[in-house]
Amino acid sequence: MAQTEEIELSELAATLGAASWSTGPIYAVCDIGGTNARIGFAQSTKRGRGLQVTYVRFKVTKKDVRQLVEFFELVLHELKTKLPNRGAAFFSRITSGAVSVPGPVTNSKVAGPFNNLKGIANVEDYPAELFPKGRSALLNDLEAGGYGVLALSNTGLLSKYFTVMWKGSQWDAMSDGKAPGTTLGKGRCLIAAPGTGLGSSLIHYMGVSDSYVVLPLEGGSTSIAWCAGSEGEYAQTLATFQASKRPEITPAVAPHWESATNGNGLQFNYAYEFDGTKTSSTSPHFGKTAPEVAKLAKSGADPAAIAAMDRLYKNLMGFCAESTMQFMPLTCVLMGDTIALNSFYFEDPARVQALQARLYEHTMERPYKFISRTTFLRQVRSVNLNLIGCLGFGTQLSQPAKVPSNL
Amino acid sequence: MAQTEEIELSELAATLGAASWSTGPIYAVCDIGGTNARIGFAQSTKRGRGLQVTYVRFKVTKKDVRQLVEFFELVLHELKTKLPNRGAAFFSRITSGAVSVPGPVTNSKVAGPFNNLKGIANVEDYPAELFPKGRSALLNDLEAGGYGVLALSNTGLLSKYFTVMWKGSQWDAMSDGKAPGTTLGKGRCLIAAPGTGLGSSLIHYMGVSDSYVVLPLEGGSTSIAWCAGSEGEYAQTLATFQASKRPEITPAVAPHWESATNGNGLQFNYAYEFDGTKTSSTSPHFGKTAPEVAKLAKSGADPAAIAAMDRLYKNLMGFCAESTMQFMPLTCVLMGDTIALNSFYFEDPARVQALQARLYEHTMERPYKFISRTTFLRQVRSVNLNLIGCLGFGTQLSQPAKVPSNL
Repeated sequence: MAQTEEIELSELAATLGAASWSTGPIYAVCDIGGTNARIGFAQSTKRGRGLQVTYVRFKVTKKDVRQLVEFFELVLHELKTKLPNRGAAFFSRITSGAVSVPGPVTNSKVAGPFNNLKGIANVEDYPAELFPKGRSALLNDLEAGGYGVLALSNTGLLSKYFTVMWKGSQWDAMSDGKAPGTTLGKGRCLIAAPGTGLGSSLIHYMGVSDSYVVLPLEGGSTSIAWCAGSEGEYAQTLATFQASKRPEITPAVAPHWESATNGNGLQFNYAYEFDGTKTSSTSPHFGKTAPEVAKLAKSGADPAAIAAMDRLYKNLMGFCAESTMQFMPLTCVLMGDTIALNSFYFEDPARVQALQARLYEHTMERPYKFISRTTFLRQVRSVNLNLIGCLGFGTQLSQPAKVPSNL
Repeated sequence: MAQTEEIELSELAATLGAASWSTGPIYAVCDIGGTNARIGFAQSTKRGRGLQVTYVRFKVTKKDVRQLVEFFELVLHELKTKLPNRGAAFFSRITSGAVSVPGPVTNSKVAGPFNNLKGIANVEDYPAELFPKGRSALLNDLEAGGYGVLALSNTGLLSKYFTVMWKGSQWDAMSDGKAPGTTLGKGRCLIAAPGTGLGSSLIHYMGVSDSYVVLPLEGGSTSIAWCAGSEGEYAQTLATFQASKRPEITPAVAPHWESATNGNGLQFNYAYEFDGTKTSSTSPHFGKTAPEVAKLAKSGADPAAIAAMDRLYKNLMGFCAESTMQFMPLTCVLMGDTIALNSFYFEDPARVQALQARLYEHTMERPYKFISRTTFLRQVRSVNLNLIGCLGFGTQLSQPAKVPSNL
C-alpha cells in the first residue's frame, strides 16, 4: 500500500466519514510548494495502518503562501456540510497539525520570506478546528522531509523507498545487527535533496533521551570548496557565470553548492562540456534544460549529457563530503524526486564507485577515514516525504517532547 | 565571584565538608585535555550560588584518557578518608556527573579516538560514587563548551565573559527587548573556538519544547571555500604546504578551515607575509611560533605580525560566513582562551569593521542579507566553559530531558 493517497475535495467527507476513520486520534497535515498545496489527514501509526496520509491537492494560483487559508476554508466547508453535526466529532479528534512550507521557519510558528511564494505564513492564521492551538506547528520543508525519513525508518518502511549506495565503516558497530538501509540506527542522518535547489537537513540523535530532532539546514547556500587544476577552472567559470546573472556579486565570489548541483547546474555543465571556460548564458551550447540533459543522459546517446551528469553528482559528492565531515552522521541520504527519477544514473556500479572515490578525496579521509564512516542511501521511489513528516512530527507533538527511536 | 575555583587535592574534603556544601544536590564535573584534567563539584545553580565549580587539577602524565580513572580514585580516597562515614552522605547527594573529553563521543557513553590522548573513554569505567549509573555522560569538549555558554546565558552571566562585536538584523525581533550579549535569546547559537585547533558546536533552540540541545560539530575539518585572485594564491600555497607535511594528500586537496585559522595558521601567515607563494616549512621566514607572532602583533612593532593576524581572523570570518549560512543562527560566538588573549586585536573598531566586511563577502549576503542577520560575540575573559557546561548539562540530566530557556 502506498503511503499517500490523493483524492478529490468532493470525496473528502465520504472518505473520512467511513468506518475505517471512525475512532482514534487524527492528525492534520499539509505541504505547500510553489505550485501545489496538499492538505490531508492521517490516523495514528500505532493503529495498525502504518504511515498513510489521505490528501486533497490544490493549485497555488496566487503564488502566495496565504492562499493556504482559502484552501483550509474549502476543506472545512466540505467537512462541515457533509459530516454529521457539522463535523464536530471528527474535528474533536484532531490531535495536532503540521504544515510544511518551502522556506525558513521561526520557532515553529512563523515562516518566510519564501523564494517562490509571496507572503508570510503564521500558524495562528489557520483554523483551530484543523490546527489546534498549542499543538500545531510550521515545519521547513527539509525539516518535514527529515521527519518523513525518520517516520519511514521507525515504521520499517525505509527500504521501500531508499537503497544502499555503500555501507559506512561505522554501521556494524551502531546498528544492533540490522542491515544498512533498513533503519537510520542510533546516530545522525544527513539529508541532501538536489532538485531545483539543494535542500538539506540533519536528523540529530540524542543519546541521553534516546530521541531525535530534525534541524533544517541551509547547506545548499554555502560556498563550494576550494579546488585546483581543471576543477578550479570549472569553479571559476561557474563563478563568472553566477556573477553575470547577479549584478551585486563579482566573479571573485564563490558560487554556492546549490548552483553546482541543481537543475541549473546540470544545464551549465552540459554547455561546459562544449564551451569550457567560455560557457555563459549566450555561449553556443547553452540552452538545453535540465530535464532535456537528463533525458539525453538516460538514452545513452549523448556522451556530453552523461559527462554533465557525472560532474553534477561529483559536485554533489563534494557537498556531501563537507557535510559528512561537519556532522559525522551514521547515514547520509540523497533524497527527492530528482534523485528517484535519475535512478538510471546510479544503477551503474562503476558510476557509484566513481562517486564514492570523489567523496573520499576530502583531506580528512586520508588517512583519518572520517568520511568513509558514513553509510550512503539514495531514494529510488517518489513519495511525499513532507506529508509523511508532518504526520511523524504531529504524533510527536501530541506526546511528551520525544521521538522514540525504534532501532 | 569567579565561576571556577581551583584548590589542592588535600583541601578537597575540608572544602566539601564545610557548612556551605552541607545540603542539596551535588554535581560531579570533569574536563580532560591533552595536558590537564580538572575534576570538580558544584551545587545546584538554583540555590543562590549561581554557577560555581570547585575543582582539583591533575597533570595527564600518561597522555592517556584512561588516566582519569586513577585521578577519580585519588579524589575518592581523599573524600573517603576525611569525610564522616567515608563520605556516604556526600556521595548520596551526587545527582549526576558529566565528563568533557577532547574528541568524538558516541551516544554520551563512549569517546575516542583522540588526537592528543591515547585510549578510549567509557563512562562505565568511572566510579559510581562520583558518576551515578544512568545519570552520567561524556560530552565532547565543544559540546560541553556550548552547554557552558548556555549556562552563562541562563544565569545572566553572559556579558561578564563575552562582548558584542556587532548586532545582527534579527536580534531585535527575537530578543524580547533584551540587549545583545546579555542572553542567547530564543534561537540558535553557533560556537567557533580557534586555538590549537578550530572547535565548533551548535546550540540548537527547539521552539516546540522551548528548550536547547548542543550539537558538537567538526566544522574546523571542512574544506576552505573556493576563492580567486590573491586569496586563491594564498589558498594554493597553504594546500601545497599541507601536502608537504602529509604524504597521503596532494597539493590539489583543499586545506581545512582549521589550518587557516589556528595557531599553525598564524605561523604560516607570518611567513607568507615575506615568502609569499614560496612559503614552506623551510622558507626564510618560517619558524616564529603563534604566541611569538601574537606578541609581535600586540606590541604593534611588526606590521607583518599584524598582517598575519589580519589574515588569520579574516579566514575565521570566512569560516563563520559558511557556518552562519548553514545554520542561520541568532548569535555566533567566538570562544576560547586564544580569542580572550587576543582581545587587543579586536579592540580596534577599524579591525572589527574589516572583519565584518570580510564576513559579508559571502554570495548569500548580497542582496539576500542572510549573513547579517546574526549577532556576533567574542569572549573577553578566560573561564573553563567545559566545567561550567558539565554543570549545566548535569543539572539537565537530573531533570526531565529539557534545558529550560531563560529569555
